[in-house]
Amino acid sequence: MDSSSLEATVSNILKEVKTGGDEALIRFSLIFDKIILKNLLASPEELQEAEHLLDVPLKQAILTAKKNIELFHSRQLIQEAVVETMPGIRCWRKSVPVERVGLYIPGGTAPLFSTLLMLGIPATIAGCKQIVLCTPPGKNGKIHPAILYTAHLLGIQTIVKSGGAQAIAAMAYGTRSVPKVYKIFGPGNQFVTCAKQLIQKDGIAIDMPAGPSEVCILADETANPSFIAADLLSQAEHGADSQAVLITTSKRIAEETVQCVQDQLQELPRKTLAEKALTHSKAIIAKSMEDALELVNEYAAEHLIIAMDQAESISEKIHQAGSVFIGHFSPESAGDYASGTNHTLPTNGFAKAYSGVSVDSFVKKISFQQLTPQGLANVAEAVEIMAEAEGLTAHARAVRIRSTSKQ
Amino acid sequence: MDSSSLEATVSNILKEVKTGGDEALIRFSLIFDKIILKNLLASPEELQEAEHLLDVPLKQAILTAKKNIELFHSRQLIQEAVVETMPGIRCWRKSVPVERVGLYIPGGTAPLFSTLLMLGIPATIAGCKQIVLCTPPGKNGKIHPAILYTAHLLGIQTIVKSGGAQAIAAMAYGTRSVPKVYKIFGPGNQFVTCAKQLIQKDGIAIDMPAGPSEVCILADETANPSFIAADLLSQAEHGADSQAVLITTSKRIAEETVQCVQDQLQELPRKTLAEKALTHSKAIIAKSMEDALELVNEYAAEHLIIAMDQAESISEKIHQAGSVFIGHFSPESAGDYASGTNHTLPTNGFAKAYSGVSVDSFVKKISFQQLTPQGLANVAEAVEIMAEAEGLTAHARAVRIRSTSKQ
Repeated sequence: MDSSSLEATVSNILKEVKTGGDEALIRFSLIFDKIILKNLLASPEELQEAEHLLDVPLKQAILTAKKNIELFHSRQLIQEAVVETMPGIRCWRKSVPVERVGLYIPGGTAPLFSTLLMLGIPATIAGCKQIVLCTPPGKNGKIHPAILYTAHLLGIQTIVKSGGAQAIAAMAYGTRSVPKVYKIFGPGNQFVTCAKQLIQKDGIAIDMPAGPSEVCILADETANPSFIAADLLSQAEHGADSQAVLITTSKRIAEETVQCVQDQLQELPRKTLAEKALTHSKAIIAKSMEDALELVNEYAAEHLIIAMDQAESISEKIHQAGSVFIGHFSPESAGDYASGTNHTLPTNGFAKAYSGVSVDSFVKKISFQQLTPQGLANVAEAVEIMAEAEGLTAHARAVRIRSTSKQ
Repeated sequence: MDSSSLEATVSNILKEVKTGGDEALIRFSLIFDKIILKNLLASPEELQEAEHLLDVPLKQAILTAKKNIELFHSRQLIQEAVVETMPGIRCWRKSVPVERVGLYIPGGTAPLFSTLLMLGIPATIAGCKQIVLCTPPGKNGKIHPAILYTAHLLGIQTIVKSGGAQAIAAMAYGTRSVPKVYKIFGPGNQFVTCAKQLIQKDGIAIDMPAGPSEVCILADETANPSFIAADLLSQAEHGADSQAVLITTSKRIAEETVQCVQDQLQELPRKTLAEKALTHSKAIIAKSMEDALELVNEYAAEHLIIAMDQAESISEKIHQAGSVFIGHFSPESAGDYASGTNHTLPTNGFAKAYSGVSVDSFVKKISFQQLTPQGLANVAEAVEIMAEAEGLTAHARAVRIRSTSKQ
């Protein structure tokens, strides 16, 4: 779908939800997903049922991941010190949660409960008061039990059975059942991505621009081709538009990896998807590690695996990437699920300017300042001269009127 | 200008600069500003000349402001600790400068060298390697000396004589003279704002969505009406679309402030502009401090002044604002110029989800993780179970292939 007709379609969906509210959501669910929704919100009974449906090992795995992700993200909540810039002038910043946030979890081939952990945990650590989850239900009109179980575990109260651009619209503008939020997070297809772009014009913030997932592996002759091949394939299986790139200084490693990829591919259930992704993936042989590093930094991969004995020292030369996996025993899968880092990361070269999702993404920092009469006197001359030089006389006067007053 | 015709005009300018480069910039300068540009970049001679043209008190004032802003912002560069989430799993984040950034300083009625300080100082503290400044020249084809002096002071090398949407395009796509950047900062008119919105689709990040400036003053009966009036007017003089709002629990304060505004207005050089802004400004009398606080937080002002004896304790109840000024001797002007805090702040209610510009805005945080074979073994089961539950077999295999290897 070309971008202007996509935009027209999505704009129309946004408009319909803005005016039609819940009814529009129910209508779109019928049109797009052929589902007759009885209730837009997941009920307490559905949450309880989900707990019973999920098997114990999966619940245990989710709890392990939750613990690690919480531990890593809880360190990100930093309160900065007060700075006295001049005697009598105290300045500081305070991290305050974004009060209402919306999390979007796509449906489709897999229930992405891991993404819900990655968005929900920093939201709860930040202290967001209202967390709204939108995710499309299955054909039975219910949300996947792993998603419901995870949402319940995180204490998310408002769980909306809606997907696509219409779900983004509901969170952006609010409906009877769906509270309006100030910032929306989460991945999605082209309709969701386009909707997130468009609602920004109405002042709703988003996590980051989204694109297909990608991995880059930097390897030298110490790498293990079968490990690398497994990592490339774990990226390729995401979807036909995923990109998996190997950059290596060793011709042998490149050749052996390509062979391992072919071998391992045969055993994958998602072989067809992965094969498509491999058609636009690359194995690149660099003349030197310097050349390789230049390319790696220019590519600015979402995920970068450094498959080298000397991975740690090389990692210090990385200045553009979303998340870096150091050494032979740090596969991307670890960070995707349970090591503790976040897996919502900038794709498509956006790592040049964007960070992945973290507690930072769920707070805003308000600045504060408090001047004593003496503090104001200390800075008054500089303010007045600068304000007058910018032609802003009233700015200068707001200082002068206080300087000349006897409090 | 309605938003769709504005978008069409700006899209066209972006396209012309993308294909026409420097020549397009020179052409637009002639068409829009009636200026024949001989050189697109400010020369070292122009920088030197600026230093001589500026009078000593203004240079001194700029230096004072620079010192305070540097002191406050330098505390924002934080390196986080390594977290061991499980034995053998080390995770951390590193703040890395956005390598290339563009700063836009508008022309118009006043040379906004203060905004250049507010953007350039955090950029240099973050360690951005390439800082590009775009600002329109005056009728004489030169940039205002206060802007040039400030740029030189901050060590900004690339100073481009270009304004408007075409300047944003030049930094987004690069031309022969203007390096392409990854993130663009700074205020501007509707063309600049629209251009910043549009280039985001091409993966260039921006500081934040822009809107007209605003101040909200929260006052009780301990406030000084003449101080408040001066603060309201210092906001109103910015432009006809500025908003100045007083929210008070005291009818007397409201009435006296309105009178003071009328009196002080007469003495202002920018009286006509300020008068227009006042037509859509408000003085609101709240029934209680609770009601007033609710309104203040809902308004989420760019600037909030708390004009009360008990300002400090009330400030703890503020959870939505850009920058808060506490007490009778903390006018907005102080923070606009020289107290040390940043004056590039979220407007139009965006303070609900956005922070002002800070060193954070000029870095991205890359996550790193390093697992030992034992570390991977500790998390392997959780990863494999979760990956299989999401239908991502290759993800599970990338862990399993390592677990079964004898490294």
